[in-house]
Amino acid sequence: MENKILKQNDRLRKQIEFIMEIDKLKKVYRQTFLMDGSRKENDVEHSWHLAIMSILLSEHALQKDIDITRVIKMVLTHDIVEIDVGDTYCYDDILRKNCLEREKKAAERLFDMLPQDQALEFRGLWEEFEQRTTPEARFAAALDRFQPLLHNYITNGKSWKDHGISSCKVIERNKSISEGSLILWDYAQEIINDSIKKGYLSI
Amino acid sequence: MENKILKQNDRLRKQIEFIMEIDKLKKVYRQTFLMDGSRKENDVEHSWHLAIMSILLSEHALQKDIDITRVIKMVLTHDIVEIDVGDTYCYDDILRKNCLEREKKAAERLFDMLPQDQALEFRGLWEEFEQRTTPEARFAAALDRFQPLLHNYITNGKSWKDHGISSCKVIERNKSISEGSLILWDYAQEIINDSIKKGYLSI
Repeated sequence: MENKILKQNDRLRKQIEFIMEIDKLKKVYRQTFLMDGSRKENDVEHSWHLAIMSILLSEHALQKDIDITRVIKMVLTHDIVEIDVGDTYCYDDILRKNCLEREKKAAERLFDMLPQDQALEFRGLWEEFEQRTTPEARFAAALDRFQPLLHNYITNGKSWKDHGISSCKVIERNKSISEGSLILWDYAQEIINDSIKKGYLSI
Repeated sequence: MENKILKQNDRLRKQIEFIMEIDKLKKVYRQTFLMDGSRKENDVEHSWHLAIMSILLSEHALQKDIDITRVIKMVLTHDIVEIDVGDTYCYDDILRKNCLEREKKAAERLFDMLPQDQALEFRGLWEEFEQRTTPEARFAAALDRFQPLLHNYITNGKSWKDHGISSCKVIERNKSISEGSLILWDYAQEIINDSIKKGYLSI
């Protein structure tokens, strides 16, 4: 569009173009179902849920006094790259291997739409989340694994059953929750054990 | 579920129950369409979009040095009450009048599920947003109006046309954007004028 304000203000133009671009994330669907089982949830819904969890559950983080604002920003932005690469099902090992290179390209294309300082901030948040080298990233990553686990449990293992996932795979995939929160990992293990007992997960 | 961890930890139990309850917000649909026009968006998608906009556009807030974390928390939580009361179309005056009392009851029921300190925090965020008495709330409210305006513009006025909305109503409804950000209000006015020119909005 020909727009005077955006012509005069290059920062606002770039920000608005990015804000319009990321609307596409609302159509990247995950394998996890909503808790009522009615449909799969999308990346945006997942990210919002993690942001609320970041606010509410930060007292359970392994390391105290983490920067909760950075955790919130990380979980809000961590899946934006999937606009270009799509959602990779976490139990699909082959797809996961090829994923990182494509995600890096996506991060470049998408975040470089922003003014340089904000591009750097968003790239930094994404890299921090991916590398898990800070307590904030480990807590954010713990929530990122815990949330779909809870969804799967509440929906009687709907997505696990659809993909024939075993409890070993679920434990292997989710044990890193303990690096972000011990109590969430204790609770996750109870969920997994109960899921085996109830037949949501094969042994 | 009978769960040892949640029995031992009353705070975590309440937090998890709230986290499960708010999944319902993913099914509260708004009148605004996704930018590709394919379907209406829901409250969670709207809230996530506002949170990203809070991060990116805070430099355009009328008052400098606002607490951006509080803005993010406000926009993430401001629509949770709609789990009980549903989305009220912003141009429906009669519905809007009856809305506040029902929203207050919803805020009580929903936020009181949380441990008391967090219930108070979430109630406080919701009330701050509703009352618009702080610069943070006015900026959050500006984004809350600007985002659907942008969606309507990008979708050629799809939702405005469906409801026969006039430009006067749109200006009346959105002029308070200027209390949160002058440049966003300038840009919003350009969008409205161009929408009239293109026939998305009647005069």
